Amino acid sequence: MRAVTLRMASSQRTIGFDADDTLWHNEIIFEQTHERYRTLLAAYHDAATVDRTLFENEMRNLELYGYGIKGFTLSAIETAIELTSGKIGTPEIRQLIELGRDMLAHPVNLLEGVTEILPLLAAQYRLVLITKGDLRDQERKLAKSGLAGHFNHIEILSEKDTNAYQRVFARHRIDPAQFLMVGNSLKSDILPVIELGGAGVHIPYHLTWAAEHAVQPEACAGQLFTVRNMRDLPGTIETWLNVSAK
Amino acid sequence: MRAVTLRMASSQRTIGFDADDTLWHNEIIFEQTHERYRTLLAAYHDAATVDRTLFENEMRNLELYGYGIKGFTLSAIETAIELTSGKIGTPEIRQLIELGRDMLAHPVNLLEGVTEILPLLAAQYRLVLITKGDLRDQERKLAKSGLAGHFNHIEILSEKDTNAYQRVFARHRIDPAQFLMVGNSLKSDILPVIELGGAGVHIPYHLTWAAEHAVQPEACAGQLFTVRNMRDLPGTIETWLNVSAK
Repeated sequence: MRAVTLRMASSQRTIGFDADDTLWHNEIIFEQTHERYRTLLAAYHDAATVDRTLFENEMRNLELYGYGIKGFTLSAIETAIELTSGKIGTPEIRQLIELGRDMLAHPVNLLEGVTEILPLLAAQYRLVLITKGDLRDQERKLAKSGLAGHFNHIEILSEKDTNAYQRVFARHRIDPAQFLMVGNSLKSDILPVIELGGAGVHIPYHLTWAAEHAVQPEACAGQLFTVRNMRDLPGTIETWLNVSAK
Repeated sequence: MRAVTLRMASSQRTIGFDADDTLWHNEIIFEQTHERYRTLLAAYHDAATVDRTLFENEMRNLELYGYGIKGFTLSAIETAIELTSGKIGTPEIRQLIELGRDMLAHPVNLLEGVTEILPLLAAQYRLVLITKGDLRDQERKLAKSGLAGHFNHIEILSEKDTNAYQRVFARHRIDPAQFLMVGNSLKSDILPVIELGGAGVHIPYHLTWAAEHAVQPEACAGQLFTVRNMRDLPGTIETWLNVSAK
């Protein structure tokens, strides 16, 4: 019995989902914080300098801090001290800590079509959530979203590159040719999966963090689809099934 | 074939290992940072007040921040502002950020017997690393340790309570009666596992973070063992095998 089940699993279609800005709003919360951050430092520097310096510090700290709000908050404090030559006050630093906590405590707002489409897909396919970032924060958002029950597996990773996807494929016996990844980031959700022989559905979000910018790849017929929102997903999956069955 | 392999796996003995202060030194790094933190605030408060206030803030922030160095650093900055009524300078805050980064970049120093004993056990049993904390930081320490290859599975969790262990048992088809967990924390490594019907080997570390304090449980014959260091482990496992086979 078990042997049959496992063979089926390995030939079974699997749909992977990114979480932030694919299932729920995320970048908009960072954008609102950036807006308040620029205001806080407006007496010292123009918005472009603030944005650029913060981003440079975030990128330099990424190797040590990884993704997530706590690392962002630490980089924001460091940047504020740097950009004001140490003249920023402790009330403002306390405000930055509060901004970080507000982000962590922010409600989870689902994107259009998610509550409607996810249960339909869960009834037909094996669904895997593949998200990167802070463990605690991603778990909390998933719990608040009420969506965890639709997924067969939850993978919270520190990075989403080809190595990371290969480990996920091995762990769940996923055949890349039978795998479709849905996400808003070409860099983290689509390109590595296509490189490994899988397919991707890109659902652009109206904001993209600079670190996730990537060049749209050359046409990859049957491997890369771009849709407007989650409601276009069932039709796109049909197309993928038809193309990849040939 | 597959069915046979799986039945064997489910009756196979599995040894779980905690990481921080079980495989490598960790609390000592926090203790060194605490020492520098007390010195930084010595002009304002005595060491006991500094320690108590920092710990209170860490505990209040734990739900939002989770475990790890970034959350600790944010709590340390917040506490420094609070304990100095905002009079702490930005150079000192920058120093706290640096202290946090030093902790993240700290070399991994293995505990006594680890490099010698782990390969022996890996040849005989299924080994699972079960650690809690920051995803990026735990992955980095594991990579630096050179120990990853000895483990069949790596589990980095946001919390180690009975629910978390139950999920790990389900994911890897571990029978609790065939499971022995090795760790320095009674609270996180031993008590939840014993509650679920497994066994635990407690290897006390000379420092214990206040949040991990727990009362030594009543005698649980055959379920709880206490040893000095990793070198005592093979003998203890033999005892466990004999007791639990009866």
